[in-house]
Amino acid sequence: MIGIFDSGIGGLTTVKAIMEKLPGYDIVYFGDTARTPYGTKSCGTVINYSLENSKLLMEKGAKLIIMACNTASSVATEKVKENFDTPVFEVISPAVKRALKESRKKQIGIIGTRGTIKSNVYEKMIKGFDKSASVFSEPCPLLVPLVEEGWTERPETAMIVKKYIQPLKVRQIDTLVLGCTHYPVLKDVIQRKAGKRVKLIDSAEAVTDEVVNFLQENPDFDKSLSKNGKTDFFVSDVTEQFKITARSIIKKRIELKHIEI
Amino acid sequence: MIGIFDSGIGGLTTVKAIMEKLPGYDIVYFGDTARTPYGTKSCGTVINYSLENSKLLMEKGAKLIIMACNTASSVATEKVKENFDTPVFEVISPAVKRALKESRKKQIGIIGTRGTIKSNVYEKMIKGFDKSASVFSEPCPLLVPLVEEGWTERPETAMIVKKYIQPLKVRQIDTLVLGCTHYPVLKDVIQRKAGKRVKLIDSAEAVTDEVVNFLQENPDFDKSLSKNGKTDFFVSDVTEQFKITARSIIKKRIELKHIEI
Repeated sequence: MIGIFDSGIGGLTTVKAIMEKLPGYDIVYFGDTARTPYGTKSCGTVINYSLENSKLLMEKGAKLIIMACNTASSVATEKVKENFDTPVFEVISPAVKRALKESRKKQIGIIGTRGTIKSNVYEKMIKGFDKSASVFSEPCPLLVPLVEEGWTERPETAMIVKKYIQPLKVRQIDTLVLGCTHYPVLKDVIQRKAGKRVKLIDSAEAVTDEVVNFLQENPDFDKSLSKNGKTDFFVSDVTEQFKITARSIIKKRIELKHIEI
Repeated sequence: MIGIFDSGIGGLTTVKAIMEKLPGYDIVYFGDTARTPYGTKSCGTVINYSLENSKLLMEKGAKLIIMACNTASSVATEKVKENFDTPVFEVISPAVKRALKESRKKQIGIIGTRGTIKSNVYEKMIKGFDKSASVFSEPCPLLVPLVEEGWTERPETAMIVKKYIQPLKVRQIDTLVLGCTHYPVLKDVIQRKAGKRVKLIDSAEAVTDEVVNFLQENPDFDKSLSKNGKTDFFVSDVTEQFKITARSIIKKRIELKHIEI
């Protein structure tokens, strides 16, 4: 199975992308809703949680792990790769590669949680590929709670998005990386506030393309993945609001199974 | 020592009230910043966390426990009282008693997290004391992240507060219970949006008065509490933002010590 974990519900944007591009592949998802959010927490804590989540996915039959959480990808990728003998995908490098491909002026904006932005992982990686690129980052800590509350169309959300995006607009970015799995849900309002000419990079789509390429290049591994169209959604805590948000992201009725971590 | 726990940093409003009314009493605080927030989580999860937090406070020398978290108080009080042989204080009943005392028209508004409001604990308790009282509740899930971000004076916060308070204003409440430890930080804007004539009830102040009364009525127990002006602040995760928020609540420099839970 393809294993995907996230700090909560937001990683379902990646599940949706995988379902569209790899229909029929069995998926096991774990959302750490009991300990969400990760973006405000320290590196050590996020690393511990990521290792626990990966172990859980392996126990549930995962043969490939996608860390759909940007905060976890920023700080825990090395440790997860060290500890598990399976292909591990993170959401940072696919988004970086795509941003560099799409950007003409190499004026790239990054938005993410406080944890992701503070880690500086996007900037380091972009500059590693292309020294001439300019990178401008803004932490947007309130967007995750706004998405989890379902406030995607509210004027307050538009105001807050505008406040976050304004400093990047001033820098005349031409490309904006949505550096958090929750943000694709706010794509429309972000596009409106960033301006039509700014190209948005969705890390859920970018990592999915990377997984598709990997499977094409490794047909034997691809064959080892089960393809019965089965999906299992586990979460460390279940509430009504989580169910509503999950349904609004994945656009269909799904069952969230509770599991202790 | 007086032990106080909260889901995060917000419970420091109670520490501040205790320090003012019981100066010199030794205090040990635990903020569960690694697993914050509690307000969006299920009852079972909040009960487990509350038992773990109480155990930790006891190990650190607490002889009296204040559950400064409204969500924990709403769902875990019975279990904590069952499991620990010390005086346990919760923040709900002191606020309820004060609200009933202050309210003339018995038109009482309650704001809190989704968990607190869903538990219906305030309404049940108010009606238990006074059947004729009318209670109107509004969950305000975005106020905790706004406080934790330090957005106390921003126009977006004022808009969101107004949106939450409006339905209560329509009901012509004369008293409003701030049913979450974070909310006293937003007292000014809440008062402005609720209107001057609405009396705000601060649960941090209410529980502190209850503790003061208890100690006066139990002088032997009072004597057993150490009074060296010592304060220990433990948190399950430390970040810069937690430090900034903690300092802004307690109004002085404090050291947050990391402890695994």
